[in-house]
Amino acid sequence: MSEQRTEIADLGEFGLIDHLTKNIELQNASTLVGVGDDAAVIDHFGKQTVITTDLLLEGIHFDLMYTPLKHLGYKSVIVNLSDVYAMNATPTQITLSIGVSNRMSLEALEEFYEGVYVACNKYGVDLVGGDTTTSQKGFVISVTAIGEVTPDTFVKRSTAKKGDLICVSGDLGAAYLGLLFLEREKKIFLETPSVQPDLEQQTHVIGRLLKPEARKDIVEFFAEKQVVPTSMIDVSDGLSSEVLHICKQSNLGCVLYEEKIPIAEDSRLAAFKFELDPTLCALSGGEDYELLFTVAQDDYDKIKDNDQISIIGYMADIEESCHIITKGGAKHKLVAQGWNPIQ
Amino acid sequence: MSEQRTEIADLGEFGLIDHLTKNIELQNASTLVGVGDDAAVIDHFGKQTVITTDLLLEGIHFDLMYTPLKHLGYKSVIVNLSDVYAMNATPTQITLSIGVSNRMSLEALEEFYEGVYVACNKYGVDLVGGDTTTSQKGFVISVTAIGEVTPDTFVKRSTAKKGDLICVSGDLGAAYLGLLFLEREKKIFLETPSVQPDLEQQTHVIGRLLKPEARKDIVEFFAEKQVVPTSMIDVSDGLSSEVLHICKQSNLGCVLYEEKIPIAEDSRLAAFKFELDPTLCALSGGEDYELLFTVAQDDYDKIKDNDQISIIGYMADIEESCHIITKGGAKHKLVAQGWNPIQ
Repeated sequence: MSEQRTEIADLGEFGLIDHLTKNIELQNASTLVGVGDDAAVIDHFGKQTVITTDLLLEGIHFDLMYTPLKHLGYKSVIVNLSDVYAMNATPTQITLSIGVSNRMSLEALEEFYEGVYVACNKYGVDLVGGDTTTSQKGFVISVTAIGEVTPDTFVKRSTAKKGDLICVSGDLGAAYLGLLFLEREKKIFLETPSVQPDLEQQTHVIGRLLKPEARKDIVEFFAEKQVVPTSMIDVSDGLSSEVLHICKQSNLGCVLYEEKIPIAEDSRLAAFKFELDPTLCALSGGEDYELLFTVAQDDYDKIKDNDQISIIGYMADIEESCHIITKGGAKHKLVAQGWNPIQ
Repeated sequence: MSEQRTEIADLGEFGLIDHLTKNIELQNASTLVGVGDDAAVIDHFGKQTVITTDLLLEGIHFDLMYTPLKHLGYKSVIVNLSDVYAMNATPTQITLSIGVSNRMSLEALEEFYEGVYVACNKYGVDLVGGDTTTSQKGFVISVTAIGEVTPDTFVKRSTAKKGDLICVSGDLGAAYLGLLFLEREKKIFLETPSVQPDLEQQTHVIGRLLKPEARKDIVEFFAEKQVVPTSMIDVSDGLSSEVLHICKQSNLGCVLYEEKIPIAEDSRLAAFKFELDPTLCALSGGEDYELLFTVAQDDYDKIKDNDQISIIGYMADIEESCHIITKGGAKHKLVAQGWNPIQ
């Protein structure tokens, strides 16, 4: 971070917006009007528009003590793009509103925006508007993402069918383990500031927490292979919670297989350091931003060779409820925070 | 307010969302998917999409001591719709994200949503998504509004032409005066809680602050009369600030006439109670949510008989800068917070 400190109050709201948005280059032909008017204007002729929003509050969603501002800006965009991809759509624009306390310098805010712009560029998204205000306490971030989808190819949570394969991208549980490491180091630091943090072995899990990616590649893969998932959701609250959303909204049950749940080797080792079951971290830990989706069995051949997709179970009758079969062969009822032994 | 108090934590996030959104009836054919998935889906085939967002923070934008929650919900929607109308567009959907501290009961939050739904129904807008989270301190509200506009009839701030008439809807300065009354009564109450507030004479100005309306009627009038303003902005920060935005972005100057600025009689009387100049309240007071726009002189006949529209000046060369001619005939330079004597 630069050592310079410029007070935000010296710029005023409009000066601040001009300063933070002056280098925007619009990337989408559909962006007719961007930042700088009452509203942005988007031309979605012949497409359907997808919109999603997230609110991130300091002390609830992030801790500035161990979250670099650039990463925070990046992640604030990603968590919204992930929701757009989870509709099988392509994100095209975002709006970004922030509430900033006077504790934060202009240089700090620039770092945050740097992360925002890196994410926008990487995912081909235009920042088209927002609101900038003073906050009495804490940093407030609200992002809304807009996306396009070819008419009627969007994918909801409620349309899974009995017998469909349940699939998930990438690997799960890492972000939660990254959080445990950072929380532990923070505690040690607060108690004994002279102790140096020891996080070198944990680049995978900490990276997954601080700089998550949205699974653009998976949605592009669907288009390429002409697969339309029967339902989809992104994994922000943990696998259990998301599977239960699909089951509830599709009015079905499911069976998952513990051995099929993708967990990175680094995550397994990290879990063991905390004496935690890696599977429970995948089921209950949040913020993985992987895609959970169901496909018809007929599409099995189209997805089976993608090493970024794991088939972890199937959709069942609602009477069968939602279960997980453990590696030992036991059958447990799936609950939002992991599993419960069957009564 | 109901005397019952239900803790929000008892419902959980998903229970809370279900509870607050269960009665939504979608009003727009373009709303294909509303609340309850990763993102909403909007069909804007053949239309252009307008998007705008506002962030409202407790202690900065509202004071719960004198702001009824139902009014706050209503106003949170209105301030966004006003930005959509300021593009000459029709609002169709909103998303609403809130951060709620445990100080707030479910009943309080229901009141807030009641106001949100009243505004949505009145303006024909669908609530299609959002995010609900815990806040460590203070109530956080983020609204994003989406609108539709017939291709290329949207109106920007930057397209005023020299000689265009500068017009404003309704009357100005009232909301700021309402705020002064409520702040004064709050101070009196905190010092002497036994004193009853005396606000009966101030229903106009207080109403304008607590329950503003967006000027849907003006945008409908434009469509009916086939007038397309050459530029437009909504008046949220005070007339001066908005006129200067149009001048700066259109690269022009302007001349305003003090005597033409519409100020309600109740606002004049209210200003005198505070020994304030009513014109300065109109120029510098915010939150009027009227529309400020410019029209070509050829359109004068089409707008002159609408008693909700006042012609207050004209656009001039940039060399002439931005001026206001006072009732006494003096010429003052317009600045963001009112006016300055010419140097």
